Amino acid sequence: MTVKFRKLALVGIGLIGSSIALAARRQGLADVIAISTRRSDTLEEARELNLGDAYTLDPAEAVRGADLVILATPVGAYEAVMKAIAPALEPGAILSDVGSVKRHVVKVVEPLVPEGVHFIPGHPLAGTEHSGPSAGFAELFANRWCVLTPGPQVDKAAVEKLAAFWRAMGSNVETMDADHHDMVLAITSHVPHLVAYNIVGTVADLEQATQSEVIKFSASGFRDFTRIAASDPVMWRDVFLTNRDAVLEMLGRFLEDLSVLQRAVRVGDGPALEELFTRTRAVRRSIIDAGQETAAPDFGRPHE
Amino acid sequence: MTVKFRKLALVGIGLIGSSIALAARRQGLADVIAISTRRSDTLEEARELNLGDAYTLDPAEAVRGADLVILATPVGAYEAVMKAIAPALEPGAILSDVGSVKRHVVKVVEPLVPEGVHFIPGHPLAGTEHSGPSAGFAELFANRWCVLTPGPQVDKAAVEKLAAFWRAMGSNVETMDADHHDMVLAITSHVPHLVAYNIVGTVADLEQATQSEVIKFSASGFRDFTRIAASDPVMWRDVFLTNRDAVLEMLGRFLEDLSVLQRAVRVGDGPALEELFTRTRAVRRSIIDAGQETAAPDFGRPHE
Ligand SMILES: NC(=O)c1ccc[n+]([C@@H]2O[C@H](COP(=O)([O-])OP(=O)(O)OC[C@H]3O[C@@H](n4cnc5c(N)ncnc54)[C@H](OP(=O)(O)O)[C@@H]3O)[C@@H](O)[C@H]2O)c1
Ligand SMILES: NC(=O)c1ccc[n+]([C@@H]2O[C@H](COP(=O)([O-])OP(=O)(O)OC[C@H]3O[C@@H](n4cnc5c(N)ncnc54)[C@H](OP(=O)(O)O)[C@@H]3O)[C@@H](O)[C@H]2O)c1
Repeated sequence: MTVKFRKLALVGIGLIGSSIALAARRQGLADVIAISTRRSDTLEEARELNLGDAYTLDPAEAVRGADLVILATPVGAYEAVMKAIAPALEPGAILSDVGSVKRHVVKVVEPLVPEGVHFIPGHPLAGTEHSGPSAGFAELFANRWCVLTPGPQVDKAAVEKLAAFWRAMGSNVETMDADHHDMVLAITSHVPHLVAYNIVGTVADLEQATQSEVIKFSASGFRDFTRIAASDPVMWRDVFLTNRDAVLEMLGRFLEDLSVLQRAVRVGDGPALEELFTRTRAVRRSIIDAGQETAAPDFGRPHE
Repeated sequence: MTVKFRKLALVGIGLIGSSIALAARRQGLADVIAISTRRSDTLEEARELNLGDAYTLDPAEAVRGADLVILATPVGAYEAVMKAIAPALEPGAILSDVGSVKRHVVKVVEPLVPEGVHFIPGHPLAGTEHSGPSAGFAELFANRWCVLTPGPQVDKAAVEKLAAFWRAMGSNVETMDADHHDMVLAITSHVPHLVAYNIVGTVADLEQATQSEVIKFSASGFRDFTRIAASDPVMWRDVFLTNRDAVLEMLGRFLEDLSVLQRAVRVGDGPALEELFTRTRAVRRSIIDAGQETAAPDFGRPHE
């Protein structure tokens, strides 16, 4: 199915918004791309990067006449954005988003969606640790999943049209329940980020001399955590404020397991350590087989 | 200072041993490279890869006549290896290793070092998650640190000669006390690996259906942990068996901090979360500035 929208409105033009703009333009998925953001500096940056066709600080103006509207701000801004754009949303338009949590988005956005607008929450499982309009690139979504969490009442044709839009940008699309999304993401993304932020925080609290050495000798393990912990603070604050229950549930399991492992280290239980370390290799092999990762050593990081 | 050894003996020819063989040959650092390993399959693989000049299953034969001997097996094998090679070690030879822990190595190896042999423990802070002779490459040590932990009595000229050997392979060399090494590595490498193994283990314990989804949707965060948790199980078992105190100390700090963070999530303390997530970005910036990491998004992983 080829898909084409008259007007795509992006509210928020950071890493994700700008990547959508570039991919949609490259694939010819919209006649017009309208861009809106909060700060005029960011808007000017988007304009200089030639990301769209129309630029405005007023999100209502951006969404007027749009048949596809995608919210791409941190989730904590959704309620205010919705209040601003709701009166300007066109009946028949598809309203979607890219937020990393979904149950909370439904709770906040759904009550503000005007009659006749098709609200279909979405989450592209793609990203890097960089942010802002210049961080985007058209290939970001290629071979990555995009999860849609339409409610039971939503128009099937609208869901199919949005799915076709994401597929045209290179994604594989999967539909699931918002709660289920939040639980799977808690373990694949939110708890790993929390743990990475935490260990980098532990280092940031070490006395200065030790800290400098940790930075100097960070090559083995720790620097991978710092990449994860370099992601946007506001976005991640909002993730933990809005997916609390699933995160605490998965963090609880993680901590239980860590107690067992801590004990194995304390008592010097070699067989238990080796058994766990062997079991975990299989998980990585599955991820590489599933096409979600490169098998190149060190992710293909340059070694010069 | 140009450096050249008559005979370099490598006991163990996995990722690290084979990388030393390749780098030493490329830089012309030894007239002869003798290779010894435990299993004949591995020895044949090394021979087919043309990693050295002489191949043997008998480590004593490999070290005979060598003026530089480097142990490159898991640390747990050192004691047995030392008992086998000690009678064959040449007076005046440098005996070193590449093990990821240092205090334990001193404890185990030092009593077995014959009079006149210069024992200088070492640890190249370089590696990937792959193992075996075919995983090695000559550039592995380029721009990475190599830490030497010579005891107070050791001959300065021998230390300088070994340092020159590592510098010739592209490393920056730093000398420090074995205990200090173990503490710094506990936080930069050992605890991150423990945490990564643990979270991947938590996933491996999920019921099958959820686990398949985690693998499918692993792109954001989790798959970085799986890379770390794909490292060699025996090597890492030995690390935790032999650097227990420093690991437990740093793990204790990590867990304290995680309790605070868990509470911030539970009570929804947005400012505390944002403050931590902002502070951690600075640590990554320092690591990139220190030349220990690429600034490319996603480590420069291919996005197609
Ligand atoms: N980064 C990832 O890896 C990733 C992956 C998947 C999904 N997501 C989701 O994508 C969304 C955007 O993330 P991103 O990485 O693209 O963020 P980003 O690069 O930081 O960009 C955020 C955008 O939202 C705008 N914005 C921020 N606060 C706002 C507010 N209070 N009111 C209105 N606009 C505001 C920013 O505008 P100004 O610059 O004008 O202030 C900017 O245009 C988030 O919901 C996140 O959960 C992110
Ligand atoms: N991997 C890293 O990222 C990294 C980084 C820095 C330092 N290190 C250190 O480097 C050392 C080697 O690691 P690696 O990654 O090169 O390992 P590897 O690729 O798994 O190779 C291990 C080598 O040691 C031999 N070996 C294993 N068990 C042995 C035993 N019980 N007796 C005698 N030989 C044995 C193996 O021989 P067979 O195949 O013949 O059995 C193989 O030649 C370890 O001490 C590790 O702490 C590793």
